[in-house]
Amino acid sequence: MRRVASGILPMIAIDRKAPKPLHRQIYDGFRAAIVDGNLHPGQRIPSTRVLAVELGVSRFPVLNAYAQLLAEGYFESRVGAGTVISTSLPDQITRGVPTAAGSKVSYIGPRPVARRTSLFPRLEAKPWLRGPGAFRVGQVAFDQFPLKVWSNLVARHCRQMDAVSMRYRNQMGSEAFRQTIARYLRTARSLHCDESQIMIVNGSQQALEITARVLLNPGDRVWMEEPSYNLARSVFALAGCRLVLVPVDDEGLSVEAGIKLSRKARAAFVTPSHQFPLGVTMSASRRFQLLEWAHNTGSWVIEDDYDSEYRFESLPIASLQGLDTNARVIYVGTFSKVLFPSLRLGYIVIPADLVDRFISVRQIVDIGPPEFFQHVIADFMNEGHFARHLRRMRVLYREQRTALVSCIGEELESALEVLGSEAGMHLPVALTRRISDREIAERGARQNLWLWPLSPYYAGKASRSGFVLGFGGTRVEEIQPAVRLLRKLLTLM
Amino acid sequence: MRRVASGILPMIAIDRKAPKPLHRQIYDGFRAAIVDGNLHPGQRIPSTRVLAVELGVSRFPVLNAYAQLLAEGYFESRVGAGTVISTSLPDQITRGVPTAAGSKVSYIGPRPVARRTSLFPRLEAKPWLRGPGAFRVGQVAFDQFPLKVWSNLVARHCRQMDAVSMRYRNQMGSEAFRQTIARYLRTARSLHCDESQIMIVNGSQQALEITARVLLNPGDRVWMEEPSYNLARSVFALAGCRLVLVPVDDEGLSVEAGIKLSRKARAAFVTPSHQFPLGVTMSASRRFQLLEWAHNTGSWVIEDDYDSEYRFESLPIASLQGLDTNARVIYVGTFSKVLFPSLRLGYIVIPADLVDRFISVRQIVDIGPPEFFQHVIADFMNEGHFARHLRRMRVLYREQRTALVSCIGEELESALEVLGSEAGMHLPVALTRRISDREIAERGARQNLWLWPLSPYYAGKASRSGFVLGFGGTRVEEIQPAVRLLRKLLTLM
Repeated sequence: MRRVASGILPMIAIDRKAPKPLHRQIYDGFRAAIVDGNLHPGQRIPSTRVLAVELGVSRFPVLNAYAQLLAEGYFESRVGAGTVISTSLPDQITRGVPTAAGSKVSYIGPRPVARRTSLFPRLEAKPWLRGPGAFRVGQVAFDQFPLKVWSNLVARHCRQMDAVSMRYRNQMGSEAFRQTIARYLRTARSLHCDESQIMIVNGSQQALEITARVLLNPGDRVWMEEPSYNLARSVFALAGCRLVLVPVDDEGLSVEAGIKLSRKARAAFVTPSHQFPLGVTMSASRRFQLLEWAHNTGSWVIEDDYDSEYRFESLPIASLQGLDTNARVIYVGTFSKVLFPSLRLGYIVIPADLVDRFISVRQIVDIGPPEFFQHVIADFMNEGHFARHLRRMRVLYREQRTALVSCIGEELESALEVLGSEAGMHLPVALTRRISDREIAERGARQNLWLWPLSPYYAGKASRSGFVLGFGGTRVEEIQPAVRLLRKLLTLM
Repeated sequence: MRRVASGILPMIAIDRKAPKPLHRQIYDGFRAAIVDGNLHPGQRIPSTRVLAVELGVSRFPVLNAYAQLLAEGYFESRVGAGTVISTSLPDQITRGVPTAAGSKVSYIGPRPVARRTSLFPRLEAKPWLRGPGAFRVGQVAFDQFPLKVWSNLVARHCRQMDAVSMRYRNQMGSEAFRQTIARYLRTARSLHCDESQIMIVNGSQQALEITARVLLNPGDRVWMEEPSYNLARSVFALAGCRLVLVPVDDEGLSVEAGIKLSRKARAAFVTPSHQFPLGVTMSASRRFQLLEWAHNTGSWVIEDDYDSEYRFESLPIASLQGLDTNARVIYVGTFSKVLFPSLRLGYIVIPADLVDRFISVRQIVDIGPPEFFQHVIADFMNEGHFARHLRRMRVLYREQRTALVSCIGEELESALEVLGSEAGMHLPVALTRRISDREIAERGARQNLWLWPLSPYYAGKASRSGFVLGFGGTRVEEIQPAVRLLRKLLTLM
């Protein structure tokens, strides 16, 4: 980061009625800001003219104060850079580094926080989340991203920015962007929707959060796939819901088991295209069973379709939303996997009669999505770059997945069982021996291998241990060394 | 928006075991997509080679199906554009426009939603929120924004994008950006903080929402300034809190009244720099009273400093956070007023011992902020553009405010009383006669005058009626005609 002077004025209180002369007040103000570390050595000071205007005083007291601060060595003059805070101040004058400023405050008395936050333990530093090694989950093939095309679109939209695009905007998101998404979803995912049902959100996590706030009361029961993504569970737990853990088998969530456990659950959260983490695709008959249950009990189905774009077989299955004839499905999608995660953009497809409720809650939550990249992505999609990118990535990820599966077959056949269908950007594998996946993951992290253990995805007792291996950001040539390293780790256990 | 072909494939299910031949399955798939309106006239169709790869079939059945679709007029060939959906399809073939797709779904049975959402009425279209006329609230002087500098920074960062910047990032936000903000707040607002306490959020609305989730339980009492910003009240209502309406007088929120109403309230929400909407600045003695109450009762103070950068007098008052010696203040700031609203970027300054709790909740809510513009703004600040922009805007807004006040003095002296201190981007005015501010606002909207009525800001009985006049986006030369229009509206009542 370039540490150029920011030109921000320190807070200098001027009181015309005080007995202390103005130049002295200005001198004291600067001195205190320097001593407290609020102005740092080398930082540029505004000109006397600017400061006089800012403070609403004449220039004389400012000149006077500056002269004194220069004379005493608090300020120094630099050719071409005006006046700056002296870089040669003795350490005892500036009380510590500025970053220590926060630690000066202490406190006594109770520190009450919301009870539900205690459900979420202090963040443990999970060692496997550290580095950028092989098998990182949720990582896309960044070096294949069409950065040039993207940059041109960004530059074009930046030039086109105007008063309208800078204002508070539609809480649902840009209309043109929503039309584009609706068209895409109808075509590629068989959804029944138009743009009035699409709400742009900051990624699928916020989609779940808003959906839970709109639909669920504290105490309501929610079916969760077991195992499932921990941050999805957290959404419903933070909303005060009771989680009903429904087992996942080869056909996806077992609707029969769910009905036995809690027929009257208010909602079901599912990842039918590619179950996270186990990777199975929900069968057509299960889809109809799930929709029938929702219809009969008046429950909602929340469909998280986080990576459905990447299927490597020839038999796509229509989304639950597309099969639903009773407007019971809330569909969630994201650009994190098909573009990149730090965009933080996703969408909800909302049953038409609930749109107003969603807007009310959305407004309270954060008013609406940021504007700029919605337009960039809309053009990226409308001009065909998105389809082209998806096609290229589908070929690449299929290659990487194939290489990974065959390498595991060669090197680790007896130790690991490959799970799930040919889809997505992660490969779930189960350990055939009863050893701790967490422990192996910790050891792997020390060697820059990113092994996400499978057992923590179980909210109840883990019936399997293993790993979720991300292959999206792992190149074919990285795969064999990484698999061999994993074999070494497993041999040592 | 350019309506170029997107190249997205329709969902075509291929079943090798079906008795129906493959070319017929492909033909039927396209035909159904066209009839259902999922492929629209003029949309480009993938080449036979691409489709064959996608479907995992040989090219022959695809060629066969395409030939038939061309022969029957569903497809047409265009020189240079390949094959597209025919633009001359009869209307009876394509069932209505694609945007009607959503309305086909009907539903029966109960549609249960969260009880608390009923607190927020179906969105009424507030007529005064319609156009871009004079006095629009929350509008900045867009034509003065240094768009050239901004575009250069955007282009620079777009070129610098790499694997790291595209990944999932720190939930708190970019460290460099947080350092920059911490330095700015220490200097300009006398805060005690370092970057480890700063969380980047999607605007101050999300700051309040996350703060409420971390600190408050359903049923907790919260002091709200009366009147106050309605979406701030909604945050606490959605969290299930009980609002304690504390009157605001010339010195800001009356701490004494608050203590009488509910000494044990768990938190107080205040806008001390420039009360919204009444515009008063909380006096120093009130600030100390408020902090003392919080200290004695173990309560929290939520300080929303939404436009403190714009003060036009020479006596700044330190933020509550800067006066607090017991780490009781959660400080909220935003870039909506000092840059522009559609950025959706703001920040929370969190007491050090609560940072982990805030991170836990933030992760669940939306994982973290989008990355890109954090870097752009950090450079904008570090290279001095921000300070320069603020200085220019301060001069401009002061001019616009002065012009507005003097024009009201000349044209409407007996009808309107100017409230509040010389700060911010909005001027609150009270009607001296008992007439309905809502009704005048509705009439104003019809004439492109953006009058935000004062009375709806009261959660209880409105003790005042009047308007909040935004002057940030209203140029000096627009002011007199707008004030005269307002006079005409008032004369007619």
